[in-house]
Amino acid sequence: MRFLQATVISRQYAIIKGLAYPRNYATLAEPSAPAVKTRNIPGPKSLELKNKLSAIQNAETIQLFVDYEKSIGNYLVDVDGNVLLDVFTQISSVPLGYNHPRLLNVFQNENNLKTLINRPALGVFPGKEWPDCLYTILNKIAPTGLSNLTTMMCGSCSNENAYKNIFIWYRRNQRGENVDFNEVELQSCMINQPPGAPQLSILSFHGAFHGRTLAALATTHSKYIHKIDIPSFDWPIASFPKYQYPLAENERHNKSEDQRCLVEVEELIEKYNKKGIPVAGIVVEPIQSEGGDNEASPEFFQGLQKIGKQRGVALLIDEVQTGGGSTGKIWCHEYFNLNGPPDVVTFSKKLQLGGYFHKEEFKPKQGYRVFNTWMGDPGKLLLLQEIINVIQEENLLKNVNKAGKVLKDGLLALEKEYSHLLNSTRGRGTFLAVNCQNSKARDDLVGRLKLKGIQTGGCGELSIRFRPALTFQEKHANIVLDGFRSVLKEL
Amino acid sequence: MRFLQATVISRQYAIIKGLAYPRNYATLAEPSAPAVKTRNIPGPKSLELKNKLSAIQNAETIQLFVDYEKSIGNYLVDVDGNVLLDVFTQISSVPLGYNHPRLLNVFQNENNLKTLINRPALGVFPGKEWPDCLYTILNKIAPTGLSNLTTMMCGSCSNENAYKNIFIWYRRNQRGENVDFNEVELQSCMINQPPGAPQLSILSFHGAFHGRTLAALATTHSKYIHKIDIPSFDWPIASFPKYQYPLAENERHNKSEDQRCLVEVEELIEKYNKKGIPVAGIVVEPIQSEGGDNEASPEFFQGLQKIGKQRGVALLIDEVQTGGGSTGKIWCHEYFNLNGPPDVVTFSKKLQLGGYFHKEEFKPKQGYRVFNTWMGDPGKLLLLQEIINVIQEENLLKNVNKAGKVLKDGLLALEKEYSHLLNSTRGRGTFLAVNCQNSKARDDLVGRLKLKGIQTGGCGELSIRFRPALTFQEKHANIVLDGFRSVLKEL
Repeated sequence: MRFLQATVISRQYAIIKGLAYPRNYATLAEPSAPAVKTRNIPGPKSLELKNKLSAIQNAETIQLFVDYEKSIGNYLVDVDGNVLLDVFTQISSVPLGYNHPRLLNVFQNENNLKTLINRPALGVFPGKEWPDCLYTILNKIAPTGLSNLTTMMCGSCSNENAYKNIFIWYRRNQRGENVDFNEVELQSCMINQPPGAPQLSILSFHGAFHGRTLAALATTHSKYIHKIDIPSFDWPIASFPKYQYPLAENERHNKSEDQRCLVEVEELIEKYNKKGIPVAGIVVEPIQSEGGDNEASPEFFQGLQKIGKQRGVALLIDEVQTGGGSTGKIWCHEYFNLNGPPDVVTFSKKLQLGGYFHKEEFKPKQGYRVFNTWMGDPGKLLLLQEIINVIQEENLLKNVNKAGKVLKDGLLALEKEYSHLLNSTRGRGTFLAVNCQNSKARDDLVGRLKLKGIQTGGCGELSIRFRPALTFQEKHANIVLDGFRSVLKEL
Repeated sequence: MRFLQATVISRQYAIIKGLAYPRNYATLAEPSAPAVKTRNIPGPKSLELKNKLSAIQNAETIQLFVDYEKSIGNYLVDVDGNVLLDVFTQISSVPLGYNHPRLLNVFQNENNLKTLINRPALGVFPGKEWPDCLYTILNKIAPTGLSNLTTMMCGSCSNENAYKNIFIWYRRNQRGENVDFNEVELQSCMINQPPGAPQLSILSFHGAFHGRTLAALATTHSKYIHKIDIPSFDWPIASFPKYQYPLAENERHNKSEDQRCLVEVEELIEKYNKKGIPVAGIVVEPIQSEGGDNEASPEFFQGLQKIGKQRGVALLIDEVQTGGGSTGKIWCHEYFNLNGPPDVVTFSKKLQLGGYFHKEEFKPKQGYRVFNTWMGDPGKLLLLQEIINVIQEENLLKNVNKAGKVLKDGLLALEKEYSHLLNSTRGRGTFLAVNCQNSKARDDLVGRLKLKGIQTGGCGELSIRFRPALTFQEKHANIVLDGFRSVLKEL
């Protein structure tokens, strides 16, 4: 009794003081294996909820309903009791798995809880801790050379606002450093007309995905269903390299792809400049994710950066899906050996909120140009801080590289064994993909894997993508590979 | 000791079971009055933090840094120890004041905490509680007649995605109910060209504010600094009525304003239809907020709705700033006696996350057309649910009307007494504004009020806006009025 009392008091003390150690949450042990209980997924309970939801919104895209109380670590538990090894993690947005005790603990700290509840308009009345919060993020994970940080709420908003920083920078370069806006500009911008609202463009790539608000969508070219019926901007779109695999056996083709695409980028910049819609920036993913996990070489990205610098066009690398560690580095573009940093790097998903790092010269000189009510969310930043702590303390990038090697080697072996079904295994860290023969075969495989208890995702037309949490280990990779093999055997 | 032990255990029990009652937070009593300690605001500590922050982002817009641990109820406490009565509430986004015990308590419930931490991709893997959560919101606060609900993260995203619903609806009406996309549309949309990416427009109003991502910004026309250097769409912009005050003495002028603007709307729809950029929707605020608290009559909105219905143009009412109770009703457009609901109503700010209610016919038939990774945030919806509970249980709309009447009557009295300084008091509930002689005088007044411990905000060129929390009471209104009077006496 004495012992119990002491325990209770010390727990209580921990809560009051907000000490950073796991409390008494039912942190279940991770299951040792997936377990599928229903004949189909979605099971009957998921279907019932889907039916209910579809009366008030389009619910066609919903795969299943989750019991987040029971989900744990790398395992997702659905309402029908199916236990799935999650290698898709909410479209690549869960860094530490489900119910990580360190994250459950963040809001046991009373000050953190107050930060969460008292949501400020960060551009006007930030909390006293806000500058330090941002400096912590900058110090710990900013791409080298990018000293400025703007926070937003999601990936689309991050890209839209980063485009604005680029337009503002571009026009300042045109106008001259300390030249004021003129009266014609002030008047015309208010009615959406040039010169105040100038004809400027962002160059993007076929197959790219940068979000779905209208300007972000104007740079997205992955699937027609995202774009059809929505007005857009006449902005240039270049080809993205289409590599053949294995890379080592297709060097000549792949190099010529790089060259072809870089030439197209230059030609499009010329063309749109002449057309009166000058290119202010280039936006590119380090790996085109929604578009099918299309990779390009470091040389391609070096070439893009060179073109940008020569022509006064900004380079924005969109790390919304690739950022946060799953490629084995915090930023995928760290693999590219660029000549200095890109101008802007956007993020979201695993980083809990949206935002972008950028060079000082991309900071608007005037207030209220890149602004909104919330400008991010300090509650999400507290989670991000703890996520970064865990990544560092538990050496999770090393873990990603180890588990990723097992998964990639295994996929390469399967691809050899079942070359009529699989090809083009690729990726870095655990950010991996493999191609199927066609869309139907891919969808079929994803469905069969799910019935083996493995939740993957499709991307592009042919690919299955793997997007596990950073806590995904070799043992999990082996479960995925065993499941994959048993599915392939059925076909 | 026995008692202490029991208390500790019962508290612990409350935490484990997540019982919904306030725990041991230091819920300070609200101060009885503002208290300004520094000569200027921002004080020295705020200035130091502002200086620090400006090295990594533009910090020009920051007014002061807040101590959110110490802020309570209607009072904001800044880092310099100034205690300000907050009548601006983070640009109108705080419904229940600071550190409301009911909100601090939401995440003491373990399931709620898990919902917060395990953030799902709601369009694919929602939690089992999600449909019920949405139904609760619909049942409690949906505008009558709007049965569908789509959640987003912020106001800009809500408007951008609502525009997409409108474009999709408009094209379905053109194409025919069950007509498939054709091959030319599928191909052309991928390169941002019509017919797949059609020339369609949203009609907006001069003085409007609907957000700052590029399509939202194309419908925003409040200040040049929001728009300059950013490319835009050639979309029609109509005049918004400019009323003279007091309303009762200017009926004829104001009615003719309504008429003038409605005629302009019709002419612009004709003009843009002929121009090949048909108008698919009209977006309008019930009170133009950022643009200067410009009101229009119920008849004006009835007229807009009629034009929309006659011409197959959707009516979107943007209640991002007006929604949530501060006009004395949950939705300001409830005052308009419309002939049936508007087609779409967007919200954000006080409602914690973004989103929109809409008619069933505005639901896309296919999945993935209005979609993103998160599609809102269940953690914010838990807060919203509790906010709605408190509004109902504490009868806060009644409180808003009572406190608003005191504040409005007081402002009208001041306006009479200081007619050379103030005019055009207007608004509903506590959503009030008064005009000054010019921008400089307005900014000066806002600054002087702050030094009396009253945090207001400017809007438009001439206006001071009042946006207190729903918990703002008559006693607070009297403090504002006393402060206002003493400032006016100084001038």
